[in-house]
Amino acid sequence: MKIIKGDKVIYKFVNEMKHIDRVSPKEKFLVETNDCFFQQVQDENMVLSELDYDCLNPATGPIFVEGCQAGDILKVKIHDIEVEDKGVTMTFPGEGVLGDQATKSKVRVLPIEDGQAIFNGIKIPIVPMIGVIGVAPNKEDGEWPTATPWKHGGNMDTTDIKAGSTLYFPVHQDGALLALGDCHAAMGDGEICFTGLEIPAKVTLEVDIIKNKTIKWPLVETKDATMVIASGDDVDQAIYEASSQGVKHLKDGLNFEWEDAYMLASLVMDLKISQVVDPKMTVRAAIPKDILSTEDLIMGIK
Amino acid sequence: MKIIKGDKVIYKFVNEMKHIDRVSPKEKFLVETNDCFFQQVQDENMVLSELDYDCLNPATGPIFVEGCQAGDILKVKIHDIEVEDKGVTMTFPGEGVLGDQATKSKVRVLPIEDGQAIFNGIKIPIVPMIGVIGVAPNKEDGEWPTATPWKHGGNMDTTDIKAGSTLYFPVHQDGALLALGDCHAAMGDGEICFTGLEIPAKVTLEVDIIKNKTIKWPLVETKDATMVIASGDDVDQAIYEASSQGVKHLKDGLNFEWEDAYMLASLVMDLKISQVVDPKMTVRAAIPKDILSTEDLIMGIK
Repeated sequence: MKIIKGDKVIYKFVNEMKHIDRVSPKEKFLVETNDCFFQQVQDENMVLSELDYDCLNPATGPIFVEGCQAGDILKVKIHDIEVEDKGVTMTFPGEGVLGDQATKSKVRVLPIEDGQAIFNGIKIPIVPMIGVIGVAPNKEDGEWPTATPWKHGGNMDTTDIKAGSTLYFPVHQDGALLALGDCHAAMGDGEICFTGLEIPAKVTLEVDIIKNKTIKWPLVETKDATMVIASGDDVDQAIYEASSQGVKHLKDGLNFEWEDAYMLASLVMDLKISQVVDPKMTVRAAIPKDILSTEDLIMGIK
Repeated sequence: MKIIKGDKVIYKFVNEMKHIDRVSPKEKFLVETNDCFFQQVQDENMVLSELDYDCLNPATGPIFVEGCQAGDILKVKIHDIEVEDKGVTMTFPGEGVLGDQATKSKVRVLPIEDGQAIFNGIKIPIVPMIGVIGVAPNKEDGEWPTATPWKHGGNMDTTDIKAGSTLYFPVHQDGALLALGDCHAAMGDGEICFTGLEIPAKVTLEVDIIKNKTIKWPLVETKDATMVIASGDDVDQAIYEASSQGVKHLKDGLNFEWEDAYMLASLVMDLKISQVVDPKMTVRAAIPKDILSTEDLIMGIK
């Protein structure tokens, strides 16, 4: 299996990027990812002002996918996320949802044993996930630092981006130009203090291409649902975008009148918070596969 | 078992209300609830301008709980929610998350067969829930129409308020003065078009009292988590309130430093959207019982 090392990284997603490696559809490959601090934080006594802030959120890549072209959808199946045996979390005054209540910085380095991170004796089951994953954005959309989520993916910080899930991205450049990093061993929906359990990882992926179909926002397919992952300047804006695309998929996939699709969504589509702390906020709208299969959803795209 | 009929209802929660019946702790009782339109909508051709808008969101009650006093917590176990064999959903231009995209009103009356509502041939599994449930609010908090969620409960429209769950309310009046209505046979988190599958129901409850403990916002206990249910003028404000109380419960229940509780919450506490369409927005913060049991959370309240 091809291994793509974690030493070649990007800090922003742009339409034109030089790829560092190439993979083919249906080939399994492994990507080594760095934690969001590029492993600078190893010690709870680390002085945070000494951090090199130019090295935050490195994403390994870009990876060129053979045969993938602008106007296609890139499908990325996550087979496995293997994390190291310790992760880092931290808080700063002013950061996160309750930044106004935080009076001091604090760093915690948590050991991971038998699938559990230990925090002051409390055992946290780990569910590794990818924080940053994306492709080359649309040229008109400009440049996106890896810290920010948008239509190309990026820092979506979505707990469902985990082993067993499949992502779908709109492709705007030959080869799609996939890059990823910033895995978390654990994170609650919201990521309220602005860090998860930050950790380097080895991610096993497989890509495929859906020709001549496009989507506005990335999708993530889980065991039970297909979710639109949308971002906005606040949570309300992200909710509007995720809802709008979710209703559109129900309308087109089921051949419903728009009003019926809107009511159906109100009955079956869960809005879920991904993260509320990155420069933009992210929400996902989950369409149950029992109501509309992922295949029929993709087929129905107009 | 005592049956409390659905003909005596309130349309606002206030601190002083005349109770219509009395129940005792650990007594099971059944409450008949009306749908949010007081059953005015029976027909898909109903002219919505003919609706009596003074009869929306009736809540059966208030019910006096023997031995319950201001400064206690009222515990309400939901044993069962039995719904009728059809439910109503509708959309209006301007209403809900995508109100700007809705071009006409539409009413759907959906039959329910074998635990599934049928919508244009699509089968929706029903999971009945209570939309409006609450107690007398704090006198200083004023009057709350049943359509609005707040610290006393009210129109929280939270899918986890279902059979098997237990609610906890802060008590501000002798007897607590419980009232409920507005059940839904099905609803997605968010309730984006502003209706669920609205339906009359028979709700079997059991109450209990936790003496001399108080909470700022209601809690709902499910199989796996204890959730703070908080509301605000927008989703961001609701997120702040739910997060703030969630971190406080982790801090007090686990005897953690505040910063550690904040980081732990970021790793394990899910923010979940309840509804984003009522006059205020509602979010819940879910603390896993594996991390802190409901009993220890309640014991830890300071």
